[in-house]
Amino acid sequence: MATLHPLDEATTLTPIGERRARGHTSPHYWNMAGPFGGATAATLLRAVVEDPARIGDPLALTANFCAPIAEGGFEVCWREVRAGKTTQHWAVELIQNDKVAASASIVCARRRETWTHRPGVMPAVPSADAVPPLDLQGRGGWLERYGFRFVEGAPGWGEEPPVEPRSARSVLWLDDQPARPLDFVSLAALSDAFFVRIIQVRGTRQPMGTVTLTTYFHAAQAVLDANGAAPILGVADARVFHDNFHDQDISLWTADGVLLATGVQVAWFRE
Amino acid sequence: MATLHPLDEATTLTPIGERRARGHTSPHYWNMAGPFGGATAATLLRAVVEDPARIGDPLALTANFCAPIAEGGFEVCWREVRAGKTTQHWAVELIQNDKVAASASIVCARRRETWTHRPGVMPAVPSADAVPPLDLQGRGGWLERYGFRFVEGAPGWGEEPPVEPRSARSVLWLDDQPARPLDFVSLAALSDAFFVRIIQVRGTRQPMGTVTLTTYFHAAQAVLDANGAAPILGVADARVFHDNFHDQDISLWTADGVLLATGVQVAWFRE
Repeated sequence: MATLHPLDEATTLTPIGERRARGHTSPHYWNMAGPFGGATAATLLRAVVEDPARIGDPLALTANFCAPIAEGGFEVCWREVRAGKTTQHWAVELIQNDKVAASASIVCARRRETWTHRPGVMPAVPSADAVPPLDLQGRGGWLERYGFRFVEGAPGWGEEPPVEPRSARSVLWLDDQPARPLDFVSLAALSDAFFVRIIQVRGTRQPMGTVTLTTYFHAAQAVLDANGAAPILGVADARVFHDNFHDQDISLWTADGVLLATGVQVAWFRE
Repeated sequence: MATLHPLDEATTLTPIGERRARGHTSPHYWNMAGPFGGATAATLLRAVVEDPARIGDPLALTANFCAPIAEGGFEVCWREVRAGKTTQHWAVELIQNDKVAASASIVCARRRETWTHRPGVMPAVPSADAVPPLDLQGRGGWLERYGFRFVEGAPGWGEEPPVEPRSARSVLWLDDQPARPLDFVSLAALSDAFFVRIIQVRGTRQPMGTVTLTTYFHAAQAVLDANGAAPILGVADARVFHDNFHDQDISLWTADGVLLATGVQVAWFRE
């Protein structure tokens, strides 16, 4: 019997009614005080991806992390908000103890070939093979679910906090651990697989967490299929840390420079 | 009797029930095939801003444009999805002919003073006074509702489409016309007040429209109050135009360089 990849296990939804399913948090994607936000976003997206009425590929995902998700079971329910010829809008909620713990709006789209122009260019970086992965063995949870090969802006774990804030920019190769062919579900999770920028910038470990995250998907399933399980390049940066919140913007690229996804998030931090 | 500013008129919501109100499209913010998306986003935000149960200031807004909004009346209904000590999540829907035409998720937050760090820096530009506004008199609709003073990347209206795509980047001073003191409602509208990037880049005028928009607010009401009706600087760019959709990212700054908002959107285009 084939073993489920941890991401597929973490995002499994068992139908219990019309557009209503049961899920369960996974120790494989545990973070400090709840599931890794990327796994939650991927779970919400998976409900729509697997809906027989879905049209086209995912185009946009906004996931709102409304409250901590406790270890254990939850329900996910979703509805088609509106569908046209080209786009289809969905709303998804993750419910635990009769309260919404996370929500998402998802746009799917039928895309046809059009004029293409790619002013965004991937940074020039060494190939993934040439960059050693961070050693995260034994850290547990979601940190062991990704290979992190930092080209720039590695978290200074074990170092003293810097006197001056470090650059908020990180550039790194990312891949699922164990290896898993790329799809929209894993791409949604990968869009949150950057260490919260305040860790990078400030070197401190105060309480923190993502409040809301938006990811746009720029490539078709065929591009993801061609990538397979190869590492993809991630770039993250931030512009403002102020009064409990900071932003983050990210992009994800195939090794040959095709933009897979862009995204933003707001994270909360204490003090 | 004081005359309502066109934005206040366009976003007026008349209560018709518990978290349910009636609104009306405005000719003052009409766009090619429906209301200017920024006015719709502002209307959805206004429902929450004026709710007596709102805590703190708006932090994040995702507005989804699900279908064209026809000229005339509509209903807006909203609900508190989840509230904690710090953040409060809302869901809003704009309904026309018993169908959802637009939806939003909104996060409000109580912010306290914390460590502040601003790695994002406003571009060096001439002051608004030194930049002549585009002449948009007679164009009608939303184009007459803003002063657009382009420092870089003005739309080449009346010019032949360029042989090579133009840069997707625009830098411009923006202000409400007539003048209006800045608040979160107007800031939400301003976050969509950039000409769709494909006009800028390609110089063509094919059918196009915003599909989904996310704006993060980085400043407190007091900062908006201090800005008053002064022009704010907007920066817009895009990274990929492909198979019917392109992205846009924006930032909005006070003249003295405080980041007011950042945002992203996906726009649809034909061909």
